[in-house]
Amino acid sequence: MDEIQRQLLEEVADLHEVPEGAYNIRANGQSTARNTTANIDIVSKEDNSGIDIKIKDGTVKESVHIPVVLSQSGLSEVVYNDFYVGDDCDVTIVAGCGIHNSGDADSQHDGVHRFYIGKNSRVRYVEKHYGGGEGTGKRILNPVTEVYQKENSYCEMEMVQIKGVDSTIRTTKAELEKGATFLVRERLMTHGSQTASSIYEVTLSGEDSSTDVISRSVAKDNSEQIFEASIVGNTACQGHAECDAIIMDKAHVVAVPKLDANHVDAALIHEAAIGKIAGDQLIKLMSLGLTREEAEEQIINGFLR
Amino acid sequence: MDEIQRQLLEEVADLHEVPEGAYNIRANGQSTARNTTANIDIVSKEDNSGIDIKIKDGTVKESVHIPVVLSQSGLSEVVYNDFYVGDDCDVTIVAGCGIHNSGDADSQHDGVHRFYIGKNSRVRYVEKHYGGGEGTGKRILNPVTEVYQKENSYCEMEMVQIKGVDSTIRTTKAELEKGATFLVRERLMTHGSQTASSIYEVTLSGEDSSTDVISRSVAKDNSEQIFEASIVGNTACQGHAECDAIIMDKAHVVAVPKLDANHVDAALIHEAAIGKIAGDQLIKLMSLGLTREEAEEQIINGFLR
Repeated sequence: MDEIQRQLLEEVADLHEVPEGAYNIRANGQSTARNTTANIDIVSKEDNSGIDIKIKDGTVKESVHIPVVLSQSGLSEVVYNDFYVGDDCDVTIVAGCGIHNSGDADSQHDGVHRFYIGKNSRVRYVEKHYGGGEGTGKRILNPVTEVYQKENSYCEMEMVQIKGVDSTIRTTKAELEKGATFLVRERLMTHGSQTASSIYEVTLSGEDSSTDVISRSVAKDNSEQIFEASIVGNTACQGHAECDAIIMDKAHVVAVPKLDANHVDAALIHEAAIGKIAGDQLIKLMSLGLTREEAEEQIINGFLR
Repeated sequence: MDEIQRQLLEEVADLHEVPEGAYNIRANGQSTARNTTANIDIVSKEDNSGIDIKIKDGTVKESVHIPVVLSQSGLSEVVYNDFYVGDDCDVTIVAGCGIHNSGDADSQHDGVHRFYIGKNSRVRYVEKHYGGGEGTGKRILNPVTEVYQKENSYCEMEMVQIKGVDSTIRTTKAELEKGATFLVRERLMTHGSQTASSIYEVTLSGEDSSTDVISRSVAKDNSEQIFEASIVGNTACQGHAECDAIIMDKAHVVAVPKLDANHVDAALIHEAAIGKIAGDQLIKLMSLGLTREEAEEQIINGFLR
């Protein structure tokens, strides 16, 4: 692993060295390092199109890191990673993809992540996307995330894409059984002429299941963002979605939430707001000596924290 | 005009007798009564498919009533009514359609209302829809409302459909120029196996234009409702949409708002909530001696007021 790849790893997985616990590091289309534990097994799919992560019943306080880095311009790949989380687990999964493109061919990573979460298990999932490099080739990431949650399971997803990804279509689907909870915290920033679509579809079919999807985004320059969040309530359940976007410069932001209540005890709520940075916030920071740009940056950082 | 038609008139236009000001009463496909004033002219379209309502510049404190009643089972009609409101007006327009169907053939009225509202004018528009009669034929109403607002005009629409309409697709579009304001207050109730779609599309292309679309609905029994509200902000503007629905029994409610911000100074907000009647509200009213049904009715009436 070279210096560029190490930098990418740090951006997407906060890794300065090899992580503790189970991990699989994929670089330029190949698995370059792997560790398994007594409770967490990682098995390559037979056609090398991805990995299966198998977590035993009752695995607690363990983590899995599966970062992907691409530093070879022009590489395009689709990877299927399947997570089989047993019952009564409590695990943290850190994914993420960093693309460094210094060439003029597009680099693309499409990761399909499927989570099968057992009864009473808790999963915390962190996914960061980052693009860098001075090439004219695009950095393209199209993550697909599917979550199937058994009774009383809990899944919390932190999805972050702050910088350098030219084009992304993010698709997340979740299906919840009885008493399950699914939380999303998405933070997104686009600039230049980047485009980002973020699509959520959460189906609450289990009694007393609940979801809370919160997306915060900043669209700068000529970038375009589309946010679609659909919550379907088929039984007694609770759903909340919130989309807050800061629009700047010549950007374009579209928010299309959808609530679908199929049951008298489905309680569904949505909120969305799109607007620019509040003028009084800017003025206050500028009166403290910051330039307009510094003030904007500070407000954006706070908003996306 | 017979007793049934008189009852319909009362339901849809609160009319006990001939209204003051300008009016056109359409019954079973024919114009049966009309009055014009010095400032408000009503002219039949040449093919009898509707009327043109022409309101002179500077007309203030005047009203136009154009109710429609259908008591003949099996009648189906499409009517185009165009309102040309001059500059500097302040007028109230009361439309509405009542269908009494005592036969087994469907009765249908599709009213297309186009409003061309002049500079600085204020228009208050009230539209009520009602269905009655013991026949098995359906009562179908598909209103299309288009609003084109000039500089600094103000338009407020109260759209009510409380009872007896089996199928409705309500489509409302508005385009606003500089400084114009468009407000909607929609109240909708469906029961039995009724279906209702309510679609709004407001385009804010004029600087400092604003809109506020508020829909409140109750879905009972096996009825189905779809609410779609789209606000497009192409300039410095403000938009707010809110959809609150009470779901009961086996009903199904879908809310799909859309915010489309095309400009850094477009401030757009949406809120939606779908849920059942709050249990504590019911219990409070029942502790005062009301039956469950009476308590529900009182809560619904308050919600839809």
